[in-house]
Amino acid sequence: MNRFWSSRIQNVIPYTPGEQPRNQQFVKLNTNECPYPPSPKAVEALREAVGGSLRLYPDPECTDLRSVIARREGLDIKQVFCGNGSDEILAFAFQAFFDTDREVVFPKVTYSFYPVYTDFFGLKRREVPMNPDFSVPIDLLCGNNGGVVLANPNAPTGIAVGLDTVEKLLRANPDVVVIVDEAYIDFGADSAVKLINRYPNLLVVQTTSKSRALAGLRVGWAMGDAGLIDGLRCVRDSVNSYTVDRLAQAGAEAAIRDEHYFQFIRCQVMKTREWTRSALEGKGFTVLPSWTNFLFVSHPGRSGKELLDGLRERSVLVRWWDNPDIRDWLRVSIGTEEDMNVLVNALAELV
Amino acid sequence: MNRFWSSRIQNVIPYTPGEQPRNQQFVKLNTNECPYPPSPKAVEALREAVGGSLRLYPDPECTDLRSVIARREGLDIKQVFCGNGSDEILAFAFQAFFDTDREVVFPKVTYSFYPVYTDFFGLKRREVPMNPDFSVPIDLLCGNNGGVVLANPNAPTGIAVGLDTVEKLLRANPDVVVIVDEAYIDFGADSAVKLINRYPNLLVVQTTSKSRALAGLRVGWAMGDAGLIDGLRCVRDSVNSYTVDRLAQAGAEAAIRDEHYFQFIRCQVMKTREWTRSALEGKGFTVLPSWTNFLFVSHPGRSGKELLDGLRERSVLVRWWDNPDIRDWLRVSIGTEEDMNVLVNALAELV
Repeated sequence: MNRFWSSRIQNVIPYTPGEQPRNQQFVKLNTNECPYPPSPKAVEALREAVGGSLRLYPDPECTDLRSVIARREGLDIKQVFCGNGSDEILAFAFQAFFDTDREVVFPKVTYSFYPVYTDFFGLKRREVPMNPDFSVPIDLLCGNNGGVVLANPNAPTGIAVGLDTVEKLLRANPDVVVIVDEAYIDFGADSAVKLINRYPNLLVVQTTSKSRALAGLRVGWAMGDAGLIDGLRCVRDSVNSYTVDRLAQAGAEAAIRDEHYFQFIRCQVMKTREWTRSALEGKGFTVLPSWTNFLFVSHPGRSGKELLDGLRERSVLVRWWDNPDIRDWLRVSIGTEEDMNVLVNALAELV
Repeated sequence: MNRFWSSRIQNVIPYTPGEQPRNQQFVKLNTNECPYPPSPKAVEALREAVGGSLRLYPDPECTDLRSVIARREGLDIKQVFCGNGSDEILAFAFQAFFDTDREVVFPKVTYSFYPVYTDFFGLKRREVPMNPDFSVPIDLLCGNNGGVVLANPNAPTGIAVGLDTVEKLLRANPDVVVIVDEAYIDFGADSAVKLINRYPNLLVVQTTSKSRALAGLRVGWAMGDAGLIDGLRCVRDSVNSYTVDRLAQAGAEAAIRDEHYFQFIRCQVMKTREWTRSALEGKGFTVLPSWTNFLFVSHPGRSGKELLDGLRERSVLVRWWDNPDIRDWLRVSIGTEEDMNVLVNALAELV
């Protein structure tokens, strides 16, 4: 705090990103990064894009990147918006579509940035309690709200809902925007993109940070009705017109074009996930079913904090939240097979 | 407009960035980019940074980049914040330091993003009219306000004030934050950085987009008291924790280290600017004195719009605003000597 701070920031509790250690001594399973390098074609495109043209501003509309995404998804380019990671797009969407007079609703256990957005933008929120199995109580997100946010699959639980459920949400909330945050969609769940042409209130958000192994580049995109996309553009041009730099645009475009490598990454991650899940269950851990590149794990005989600290002593970083709803759980990103062997052995030592 | 838009965006008029043509047919003097490529050392550092590590999130604190800036400026790293271009940092600063109950003041003719920020963030503003010679009426920015924003040198006029004037502003407004936007500081004016340790209400904002020839990378930074820097961090972590990607951090760091190339760019631009100014005055144009990489130009016999359109027909892009205060003026970025020859000849044909 400082006497010059505005009232807007005096009471906000910002998001805490996962630790980014500055050396390589850890098996890093704490921020859901991809354990494989980005597509060789993306690397090549990036090397080519490095040069004299960096003196020029980027295309603020990300035209080439948006047209590649639109073509892949069977959309019009006007239905696609690109931003500096899905977090920026979510922040823009909260400002573009939610008003201060009605509650934004989302599950109580979900991406911990959502309540930060509502606080920071002065919005009201209603967090609906989870079902006992950590599934999302969809009925409680239907009606009587000013907007809905659903991470599908959900984080940090890893649980996905089907498109019939997403459609139920869209029908039950026809007058407000339903944001479906699909950061983890490529690891086994169904994307709501195919519903966009039928539901003008649907905004789907995706990212290159997970399945395209480009967390370091900061590119996300939203897909929805052209009117919603215009709203995001309006917010962007009210704060910073050029949020996706030239290299990020070039790298993301090449990565999204490389369908073959993308399939390799997602299949490999899903395979390693299922191996890890079964290995941990064999050691007595409880593991939620996951449609993501992470597992949500607990053990009946150990607290989450004990496991977190024990893993850190063994040079393994995972994510834990000091939150009563999930205090006994760890979120473990899926690394390479070797990483997961280290994790499983380390956890086995701790129980 | 769309029925799902929030009231926040229904009435805002966003910033309009200068045109970024998608082909190379123009002499592009419309967005104050550097006509020279970035430092060869920055290009090399970028090529080296392209690779497998892009799968990992960037350092959200930009530690290496901030420490290079801090060392160069004789500051502590806690006095430096990095963001996605100076526009993002300005947007963060308006949210971090200005409150809705008191007017933010800035000159009437200045960077056209400032009134967009006040509108979008629900702040009140008071725009003070310029002196007849387009200099800033400093006395009108002293006291009775909730914050001050001064572009120094000012845009689009190009006129700078001295540090004595900046200091007067800081002393006259001790209880509010004074933002000094130094996007163009490297082309002849004095930076207020040396005042930071004496004025806890001073925030200085700079960018790699002009004198470091890296507009395509999106890196800006703010310097000020550690308490102000913490406020910017609080805003960032309430909207998007990782706004400066891995490549942008690496490229900006190398560019800022390359003092020799930086001096080459600024001297070359200033030399070409003075040549252009004198050539245009020789053709009967009025040219304001400039401490930037652009000139503000008018002609007694032609309207600004006539000159703008005539230049475009001759494949030269410059910037013009449909604003009664400056309707007869063009902002012309300083390009290469060859670019400026084309510009001078084209303008000569039009009068």
